[in-house]
Amino acid sequence: METKQFKRVLFGGDYNPEQWPKEVWYRDMQILTKADINEATINVFSWAQLQPSEERYNFSTLDEIINLLTENHFQIILATSTGAVPAWMAKRYPEVERTDFQGRQHRFGGRHNACPNSPIFRMYGRRLASKLAERYGQLENVICWHISNEYGGQCYCDNCAKMFRVWLKRHYSSLDKVNEAWNTHFWGHTFYDWDEIFPPNELGDAIGVDNSTIAGLSIDYRRFMSDSMLQNYVDERDTIREFDSKTPITTNLMGTFKDLDYFKWAKEMDLVSWDNYPAYNTPYSFTAMSHDLMRGLKNGAPFMLMEQTPSQQNWQPFNSLKRPGQMRAMSYQAMAHGADTIQYFQLRQSRGATEKFHGAVISHADTDNTRVFKETASLGKELEALGTETLGGRTPAKVAIIFDWDNYWALEYASGPNVLLKYVDQIHRYYAAFYRQNIAIDMIPTNLSAKQMSKYDLVVAPVLYMVKPGVAEQLTKYVNDGGNFIITFMSGIVDEHDNVYIGGYPGPLRKLMGVWVEEFDALPPEKNYQIKFNDQTTSRCNLICDIIHLEGAETLATYDKGEFYQNTPVITQNNIGAGSAIYVGTQLGDEGLDHLVKDLINRFDWEHYKTPTGIEITRRVNDGQTLYYLVNNTDETATIEWPVSGVDLLSGQEVAEGKIRVAAFDVKIVKKR
Amino acid sequence: METKQFKRVLFGGDYNPEQWPKEVWYRDMQILTKADINEATINVFSWAQLQPSEERYNFSTLDEIINLLTENHFQIILATSTGAVPAWMAKRYPEVERTDFQGRQHRFGGRHNACPNSPIFRMYGRRLASKLAERYGQLENVICWHISNEYGGQCYCDNCAKMFRVWLKRHYSSLDKVNEAWNTHFWGHTFYDWDEIFPPNELGDAIGVDNSTIAGLSIDYRRFMSDSMLQNYVDERDTIREFDSKTPITTNLMGTFKDLDYFKWAKEMDLVSWDNYPAYNTPYSFTAMSHDLMRGLKNGAPFMLMEQTPSQQNWQPFNSLKRPGQMRAMSYQAMAHGADTIQYFQLRQSRGATEKFHGAVISHADTDNTRVFKETASLGKELEALGTETLGGRTPAKVAIIFDWDNYWALEYASGPNVLLKYVDQIHRYYAAFYRQNIAIDMIPTNLSAKQMSKYDLVVAPVLYMVKPGVAEQLTKYVNDGGNFIITFMSGIVDEHDNVYIGGYPGPLRKLMGVWVEEFDALPPEKNYQIKFNDQTTSRCNLICDIIHLEGAETLATYDKGEFYQNTPVITQNNIGAGSAIYVGTQLGDEGLDHLVKDLINRFDWEHYKTPTGIEITRRVNDGQTLYYLVNNTDETATIEWPVSGVDLLSGQEVAEGKIRVAAFDVKIVKKR
Amino acid sequence: METKQFKRVLFGGDYNPEQWPKEVWYRDMQILTKADINEATINVFSWAQLQPSEERYNFSTLDEIINLLTENHFQIILATSTGAVPAWMAKRYPEVERTDFQGRQHRFGGRHNACPNSPIFRMYGRRLASKLAERYGQLENVICWHISNEYGGQCYCDNCAKMFRVWLKRHYSSLDKVNEAWNTHFWGHTFYDWDEIFPPNELGDAIGVDNSTIAGLSIDYRRFMSDSMLQNYVDERDTIREFDSKTPITTNLMGTFKDLDYFKWAKEMDLVSWDNYPAYNTPYSFTAMSHDLMRGLKNGAPFMLMEQTPSQQNWQPFNSLKRPGQMRAMSYQAMAHGADTIQYFQLRQSRGATEKFHGAVISHADTDNTRVFKETASLGKELEALGTETLGGRTPAKVAIIFDWDNYWALEYASGPNVLLKYVDQIHRYYAAFYRQNIAIDMIPTNLSAKQMSKYDLVVAPVLYMVKPGVAEQLTKYVNDGGNFIITFMSGIVDEHDNVYIGGYPGPLRKLMGVWVEEFDALPPEKNYQIKFNDQTTSRCNLICDIIHLEGAETLATYDKGEFYQNTPVITQNNIGAGSAIYVGTQLGDEGLDHLVKDLINRFDWEHYKTPTGIEITRRVNDGQTLYYLVNNTDETATIEWPVSGVDLLSGQEVAEGKIRVAAFDVKIVKKR
Repeated sequence: METKQFKRVLFGGDYNPEQWPKEVWYRDMQILTKADINEATINVFSWAQLQPSEERYNFSTLDEIINLLTENHFQIILATSTGAVPAWMAKRYPEVERTDFQGRQHRFGGRHNACPNSPIFRMYGRRLASKLAERYGQLENVICWHISNEYGGQCYCDNCAKMFRVWLKRHYSSLDKVNEAWNTHFWGHTFYDWDEIFPPNELGDAIGVDNSTIAGLSIDYRRFMSDSMLQNYVDERDTIREFDSKTPITTNLMGTFKDLDYFKWAKEMDLVSWDNYPAYNTPYSFTAMSHDLMRGLKNGAPFMLMEQTPSQQNWQPFNSLKRPGQMRAMSYQAMAHGADTIQYFQLRQSRGATEKFHGAVISHADTDNTRVFKETASLGKELEALGTETLGGRTPAKVAIIFDWDNYWALEYASGPNVLLKYVDQIHRYYAAFYRQNIAIDMIPTNLSAKQMSKYDLVVAPVLYMVKPGVAEQLTKYVNDGGNFIITFMSGIVDEHDNVYIGGYPGPLRKLMGVWVEEFDALPPEKNYQIKFNDQTTSRCNLICDIIHLEGAETLATYDKGEFYQNTPVITQNNIGAGSAIYVGTQLGDEGLDHLVKDLINRFDWEHYKTPTGIEITRRVNDGQTLYYLVNNTDETATIEWPVSGVDLLSGQEVAEGKIRVAAFDVKIVKKR
Repeated sequence: METKQFKRVLFGGDYNPEQWPKEVWYRDMQILTKADINEATINVFSWAQLQPSEERYNFSTLDEIINLLTENHFQIILATSTGAVPAWMAKRYPEVERTDFQGRQHRFGGRHNACPNSPIFRMYGRRLASKLAERYGQLENVICWHISNEYGGQCYCDNCAKMFRVWLKRHYSSLDKVNEAWNTHFWGHTFYDWDEIFPPNELGDAIGVDNSTIAGLSIDYRRFMSDSMLQNYVDERDTIREFDSKTPITTNLMGTFKDLDYFKWAKEMDLVSWDNYPAYNTPYSFTAMSHDLMRGLKNGAPFMLMEQTPSQQNWQPFNSLKRPGQMRAMSYQAMAHGADTIQYFQLRQSRGATEKFHGAVISHADTDNTRVFKETASLGKELEALGTETLGGRTPAKVAIIFDWDNYWALEYASGPNVLLKYVDQIHRYYAAFYRQNIAIDMIPTNLSAKQMSKYDLVVAPVLYMVKPGVAEQLTKYVNDGGNFIITFMSGIVDEHDNVYIGGYPGPLRKLMGVWVEEFDALPPEKNYQIKFNDQTTSRCNLICDIIHLEGAETLATYDKGEFYQNTPVITQNNIGAGSAIYVGTQLGDEGLDHLVKDLINRFDWEHYKTPTGIEITRRVNDGQTLYYLVNNTDETATIEWPVSGVDLLSGQEVAEGKIRVAAFDVKIVKKR
Repeated sequence: METKQFKRVLFGGDYNPEQWPKEVWYRDMQILTKADINEATINVFSWAQLQPSEERYNFSTLDEIINLLTENHFQIILATSTGAVPAWMAKRYPEVERTDFQGRQHRFGGRHNACPNSPIFRMYGRRLASKLAERYGQLENVICWHISNEYGGQCYCDNCAKMFRVWLKRHYSSLDKVNEAWNTHFWGHTFYDWDEIFPPNELGDAIGVDNSTIAGLSIDYRRFMSDSMLQNYVDERDTIREFDSKTPITTNLMGTFKDLDYFKWAKEMDLVSWDNYPAYNTPYSFTAMSHDLMRGLKNGAPFMLMEQTPSQQNWQPFNSLKRPGQMRAMSYQAMAHGADTIQYFQLRQSRGATEKFHGAVISHADTDNTRVFKETASLGKELEALGTETLGGRTPAKVAIIFDWDNYWALEYASGPNVLLKYVDQIHRYYAAFYRQNIAIDMIPTNLSAKQMSKYDLVVAPVLYMVKPGVAEQLTKYVNDGGNFIITFMSGIVDEHDNVYIGGYPGPLRKLMGVWVEEFDALPPEKNYQIKFNDQTTSRCNLICDIIHLEGAETLATYDKGEFYQNTPVITQNNIGAGSAIYVGTQLGDEGLDHLVKDLINRFDWEHYKTPTGIEITRRVNDGQTLYYLVNNTDETATIEWPVSGVDLLSGQEVAEGKIRVAAFDVKIVKKR
């Protein structure tokens, strides 16, 4: 099931008419239709309305909403409403509410509030999904199921503790193996009874949020929580499938969100959909990376941009407006990176409660006479005109970057060497260096086979701290067979249980990289050193400085003057089999990363484009036809070198190869001739 | 009942002799009398002493203290001691202690520690007040009752939850109305049973201290808490009145303190009294505003300065000394803004516990040979000489600023648009602009009638975010009838339940202001824009930038270059009926506010004075006689233009209109000839 | 019992082989022996292994480890393992886990996790120590007992509350005395029943971590907690003594660690041992002071450096490597200040859990071919060659600085005058001024007799806030008999219960100092003033400025221009009897402290040396023979003036008095000829 079945770029968003009188509904339909909006995501937080008490269900309002949308030719993404439990459930069964990191059982409040292991929540959640599927699953215009909403968070209740022990038994079979996996002997934590194990919150083994007496326990608890919520998703999915065998099923993800192992989740999802909410100062490259990660979850398949704001958010510290043209540019940026839908949170702005200042297609002004509405309507027209042309396109990447939630969790639980070392930041530094050259990137998981990776010239794995079983073997085979591979400092350190590979870093990758890292120095933020490439180019470096011994690799760069490891190797390359393995032993400044990427470009002759900061050129290929996306993310006009001649699908005009002028926030989708 | 009944400026403060042996008491009397101190506030935290166990009362020590004071011709402000529960009560009835925002029931500790809805606390609190009134209410020198102390804080216990539901029933009558008022449908919060509603703390709907899933619930809980404590006050007041029908009753307030709706409280108080504790870097204008707010609570009636420190505080991060002369200047600043008493916390410095380093008239040195004592004594002499001359004066203000606790709460619960937007800060920016011109200001509530406002040339309502029922109508009538009115960005947004007025900002004020605010941009702190007045004067602006459409108003200033809304209106004026309504769509720099105020001065010809920073000229009028107060709040000498000829009541010297020299911290009270 | 019994500088560290297979053990022995390591500290966190269930003990693994070490000629420091309770105990007896400052009973997790007053913990802790002593106490190579580990923290459980009341009864005998001691009348806290008293955590009287409604209660609770843990230590010590009458017993302390009154603890310890973990930016003088404090605990007796890292830590924010030579320099710095052992945490790096990145002699690389190992081995050779020459040396100090945990606690509970005032920081400022002149310092407790102090030319007591009974008398006698004494602002303020001495600061020291401090001004961090010595030298000053009246003292320095107390005395000297008493009424800049110290040097003609920053010259005297230690703590080479001719015990070379060159991190131990 793919987004290709859409008849055009799906255009719509969250719609929540229950808080309004009927006359508003009718007006909404008129206004939204003017903007060529043809989809509504409904029923996201309606459990309390659908099931007003334990004994009673009431679908009358939802029936009316669906009728309204159907009469107005809207396609529907139908949510299951299980993202927030109703108040009566919290009152009657207090254990459905979560127990937090501080150890406190919550009362009714908030959303995303259910203990994922509560039998009551699980039973009633499944039952609600089942009733919805039975009632609405056959409707033609219900084109997608949306289970719950933005899964995430943790619960540390006693019931979760029990289920965690079950999860542990399934994974480890014996307590001896648990003790070994977690190295519990350290600090005398040896467990002799399963019931001695508790969730690692502030009442247990946590040392603050990012640290723990036993990192292995904390990592396993994150795995368990991700699995528990995935089970909630699967529960609902499976019950929907009993009534509806063909409508795709998704839930909305959140980019680099830490809590859930999205690669594992995506296996259970028909489509990936996600919510894109950059802050005013989020780098363009970060948004691009997030899109690519979401595309990567299902091996490059197009995804749904389930939510973005038409203009303003409300929960950021500083909720700036999207500038005129910016929402359009951001929509096409999503499309350029793999989106086949453009959806908003939300179609009508809420009149009260915490998100009332979140932007909407129809604002509090309640009129189509707003800048934001006009821009939306204009985009709607464009998308309508595009038809199916952009749908289903694939990104032709020769470079892949590994992203792995186990690594994310494990690296950030590590006590030492440097508190400023953060996983996503390290991934983004490498992503951004390729992005600056407009080189297409696939975000991939750790567990691909050498064969699956063989389509890439290069695989980059920043801070590949945890090397899980089989990973080193596949990477080695990939390189031997002609692949090229980059890792950085803090790689090859621990196994899947967070126990160190003894015998010298980077552990199971030592032979592949041809280096032994004897020590890693941690630099405080006020300290910067410098490195020097063989061609004498220099770059700042900081955060971590590895002390490296060559074991077959050759030196690409050394530490410059100033430290006791001056003149020793910092970047190395090991030529092995038909490929090569590059080790980067420090955090490079952007200029160092750019130098490295340029060397790689020279070597591999990848398609790449020089553009001013914030202007991207991206490609999607569909049945051999390449579309070139040009997106100016900035509010400045620029002149760029354009690589192909063809027709701009948006303006209908010819664009010739060579210098072209790009207006602020402008976009082109050029079909190569 | 007014402060006018005092025979001179009341001069005294908190006195807590219980911790000292008798010989100290007698010495205190001698020393204090030397300083012309004629009042003592006693019995503030003596519950444990007065009622050593549930079964027993013991007034012997209090009798002795009162005898002592009476013999020494002191007037007495008698506190009821209910500001801290005794330890035995917390032990026997744990529920009298509060449950905090984290959901934790406290044990014995601290002060202001009683759950306001605890029946035990309420019963024993009333009983204590009743016994005190019965025993001491007829004493001639008990000139004021002081109920409890610095009411404030919150409780989130189960008993409060129950009482909150009662409060809600009284205010809403049905759950449907609650659901509508709080827009609970959002995030599926619909309540079907009153008992599903919980206090909004961290275990419930709070999202941090300043945010909440349901802002309407959080605002109502603040109203409920303010009302609950007010009920505690009323309980004691009413029982005192059974025994003492004429002594004025007060409790000490705290300026712009957030927790309590002081306008509502003041209705139940005979006199307003308050505690003035600026930090070393509190702007002089902020202290002035606080005084004016306290005066405004009872429509301009003089207030009691119940507490100030003779020199040093102890609970600030940096407790600097008041410089020589500074305490005197601050005392007269209070008087200039409406105080008829000058009182200290405290007469004798405590020997132990948390406030032991708080300044006092008699310090740890235990002598009258200190700078602080001498300055106090000298002030005492001056006040004695002043007699009744200053008492009862009224401030002749032509400008009013609206201050409203519902707005304070609602604006700060709002999620978005900018976390740096704070209510009191916005009020103070406008206050300070008038203060810099020495223009008299009244602080008024939102609910005055057009008639009540008609005495003002101008009413200013910064961030009038919440417009409660009737307010728009009265403001419109006020303007139509010739009044002038200013509001800013983030005004006219929500109704009394925090639900947005649909149809375009500023909602019910749109017609009055003659503008439609389509969008508001939020600026991060590193961003500043500029505006340009019609006369080409420029000013910085930041925080929020409204995008404004004129609907009858004319433009006073536009955004300058740099943003997509450049050249659009930012300050507008709507001439309507006999008056005008000015809308300020951004946070102006001080230079912009000064420009605005100067334009208004030109228009209205208000009495105003140009003085160096920190030097204020203030007026109070009594029976047609105007006293001109000159206060130099700074430690620098300056030359100023003095507006009137007359006699300085403090020095007895003639002061002529024209240039005069003002020494550091100097003060004059000139009776106009 | 002294370290002198060691046959050479003991060289070893923590060894934790239980997590490794046997082949690793044998290899470890070979590698460690190469480094001349001759000691292992074992069994620190093995309770769960030694007692796998309540019913069963199992010493087989420990037997094997001890056999291994014995066969390989290692000396053993045997820990009792009670620093972390086993999981089964927490599960079966939840009350053995602590209740925290937030009032939450913890579940199993962490270490240092036992409630010190839990009868179960106390019984089983004693029993374990007893079994260990019975089994291993007679072994020749068990040269020291190491009870528990790094005692510290607090518990606030109900059982502690009960024991606290018992402690209070023992100390106060009556509630009246408690009420008086804590000045409970303030804020109406009078207790009429012992059971009304609760531990001062967030549910009780705490106002944040560093403040409290009743400081006296909080100080007493700290005393009680320190005593409770000391009782845990004494429990184990006494039971060991039943089986082993002669092996010295210690526990590892932590320098200026706040929680425990180490002077009181040291009385119960045969040897002081401590763990030295400076951060990358800890001043050298701070480390030196910590060593001197540890030496001072037992009146100058040599101590054990129980733990330091061979190179890297893991729990600092930025865990930099020790530079080549730096570990050696830091080891000798410890020895120069009194250490007779050099021990590491740890001999082999852990493979998992929170400290896995903490450095070790044998790193994860599992080889002797590392920089760190080689430096360790080289140091081992040197220490082997030194033999007993350095052991038992005493520091010939003529200057003492008072350090007192009661003062530490009381000063930091004080609310006011300045939040930036911290006890250890104030002590360190004075220490550092002497350190910069290489003047030997003894750190002494408050309660020495005049006779005990008489060996010092000078006793310095920065911020001697709390003056306990007898202290003023002994200090006065000391000065009268010819001693010299310095105190600073915030001295002589409170008695042992934190009640202010009434009658003028510095209370009981007023006569001795010949000054009366009328007021103390608190300066915010942006404010600095200047003082001027009699010779017109100036110095910055800040934080606190006392306003001083001379009462016999003469002025050494006055405040310079700028404040109302300009030209008044700020540093004074009172000549009394045969001695003198200097009062420093502000926080001096380093230049002011240097000026003061130079004046004292001129006066007393102390042995002192001018050296570049970070290079220290230190002396230890043994049976009349003086060893001069030269330690370059920096990575820079310098030329210094060397004071004596003799042989460098490390290089065997002659060193002549006069200019010598000192390489980066270089060390000499010169035996004076």
